[in-house]
Amino acid sequence: MSLPHSPSNPTPEPRELLAQWLSDFEPPFASLLDTSGHAPERLLASMRYSALAGGKRMRPSLVFGAGQALGLGQPALFAIAAAIELIHSYSLIHDDLPAMDDDDLRRGQASNHRQFDEATAILAGDALQALAFEVLASDPILSQNPSAQMHIIREIASACGAGGMAGGQMLDLAAIDQTIDYRALETMHRLKTGALIRVCVTAPAHLTSNHGPWGAQLARYGEAVGLAFQIHDDVLDVTASSQDTGKPVHADAARNKPAFPSVLGMQASQAQAQKLCAQAIAELEGLPGDTHVLRWLAEYAIHRSN
Amino acid sequence: MSLPHSPSNPTPEPRELLAQWLSDFEPPFASLLDTSGHAPERLLASMRYSALAGGKRMRPSLVFGAGQALGLGQPALFAIAAAIELIHSYSLIHDDLPAMDDDDLRRGQASNHRQFDEATAILAGDALQALAFEVLASDPILSQNPSAQMHIIREIASACGAGGMAGGQMLDLAAIDQTIDYRALETMHRLKTGALIRVCVTAPAHLTSNHGPWGAQLARYGEAVGLAFQIHDDVLDVTASSQDTGKPVHADAARNKPAFPSVLGMQASQAQAQKLCAQAIAELEGLPGDTHVLRWLAEYAIHRSN
Repeated sequence: MSLPHSPSNPTPEPRELLAQWLSDFEPPFASLLDTSGHAPERLLASMRYSALAGGKRMRPSLVFGAGQALGLGQPALFAIAAAIELIHSYSLIHDDLPAMDDDDLRRGQASNHRQFDEATAILAGDALQALAFEVLASDPILSQNPSAQMHIIREIASACGAGGMAGGQMLDLAAIDQTIDYRALETMHRLKTGALIRVCVTAPAHLTSNHGPWGAQLARYGEAVGLAFQIHDDVLDVTASSQDTGKPVHADAARNKPAFPSVLGMQASQAQAQKLCAQAIAELEGLPGDTHVLRWLAEYAIHRSN
Repeated sequence: MSLPHSPSNPTPEPRELLAQWLSDFEPPFASLLDTSGHAPERLLASMRYSALAGGKRMRPSLVFGAGQALGLGQPALFAIAAAIELIHSYSLIHDDLPAMDDDDLRRGQASNHRQFDEATAILAGDALQALAFEVLASDPILSQNPSAQMHIIREIASACGAGGMAGGQMLDLAAIDQTIDYRALETMHRLKTGALIRVCVTAPAHLTSNHGPWGAQLARYGEAVGLAFQIHDDVLDVTASSQDTGKPVHADAARNKPAFPSVLGMQASQAQAQKLCAQAIAELEGLPGDTHVLRWLAEYAIHRSN
């Protein structure tokens, strides 16, 4: 018997609901990195070190939030959330490498190549990317809808390739010591972080019967939240402490990296993030499910302290 | 009207047939790396530099040969061949990096990070891997058989992950300066190059109605050819010139890398490669199509001069 939504059993707060989803997500996610077959233990240890380092899990949260907004059950969403988090983890490892951003600190601990070594870090990233696609192609629930599964794989692969995340990191590195305008900075972030954040909310739409319209609304939500998230990241890089963020702060200025506060000014950056957050929330109108968590995540993107 | 196979129009030699298949393969393969959307031009140039550098195309050849042995048409094989060659190209780029094998020369030209830079080389490899899965998930012919398509994606992802290619490279790096026996050397190569070579011939079997038995035969063929290919590679590293191989020779000894000639002896290595070649050819018995090209490739693996 399911309990009624009464004052004594209210709908859980978005934050509590998210915490529950993420706590359900962690054990099967961790088990994807269990010892198996011939995989060398040190490589798996390096993959686990980064993937299970207790990040914010913003991307799985968006997947689960989008699923809720579309009226989907959590089990269908696991593989999407896991694959995107594996890809995100690989990108952090590679971005931190000496040849890239050369960061020693990540999520409050030594970056992967500092904890292990560069070769291991490169291979751990490579293997995490491969695992993401293996997870998507093997998931028994997704496999019940092979056409949707294929669209999801295609969209995620496209989001992390040369026209998405990898291309964005390339633009980011090219922007060091350069003066670029707001438009160029936005394009860089739309690729570097925006494409993967966008696919978090569009991928679940393939599991519905009304993919076109709902997918388009969620795409616009994802683009706005992704950009707002990044603007706020740049703001935190100026205003927060390393203890808050778990990574070096003032890193953009130290590296002569263009960032929203330096391009737009601090106040205009914060105003722009607010505007994008409102745009994102407006896109949720008319979705068939409960949009409370996606609303909360849009607000969180621009109010978080780390 | 199709021409009869008569003395005036004989079945083409395997070498000619392969040359024709590969010449048909190149233009659509190259067009996968065309400029599109927001992908930064320098990143695409780096991806093209390695993927279109005129390698042996051993892996696409195996895909097409397996397709012929199974009675499949070439169009169904393109995405499999292309994806595996993209993955192979990415692995060469990453393997050559200073933190890995630190090679300056590849396929007779500067290695990717020497021609571009380390960050670009890392990202080009990352983006090539993503593109491989995008190609598999987008191919219109594979998409006509979504269940086979999913098995193929799963197998290829598994072959290049921690329990396959990336894991093998990890074992390879760990073996430097170590004394290892034949069994450990074999395990390393079964992961590092064997898993991807194996999937070249097993993936097409998913497109047939008798996948189980034919796939198992082809898996054994692929394992034997993959190992024979690698033993011959180690032999060439001792006996050939850099001009022949397009990469530095005597590199194994210079780096204190265990190799088959140093573990087994030169004569026993060559005998083992011969034995594996014969085993591979014996596995082709009973396949429904023409196995001439797969026979030829097994011989080529141990007789090539580069």
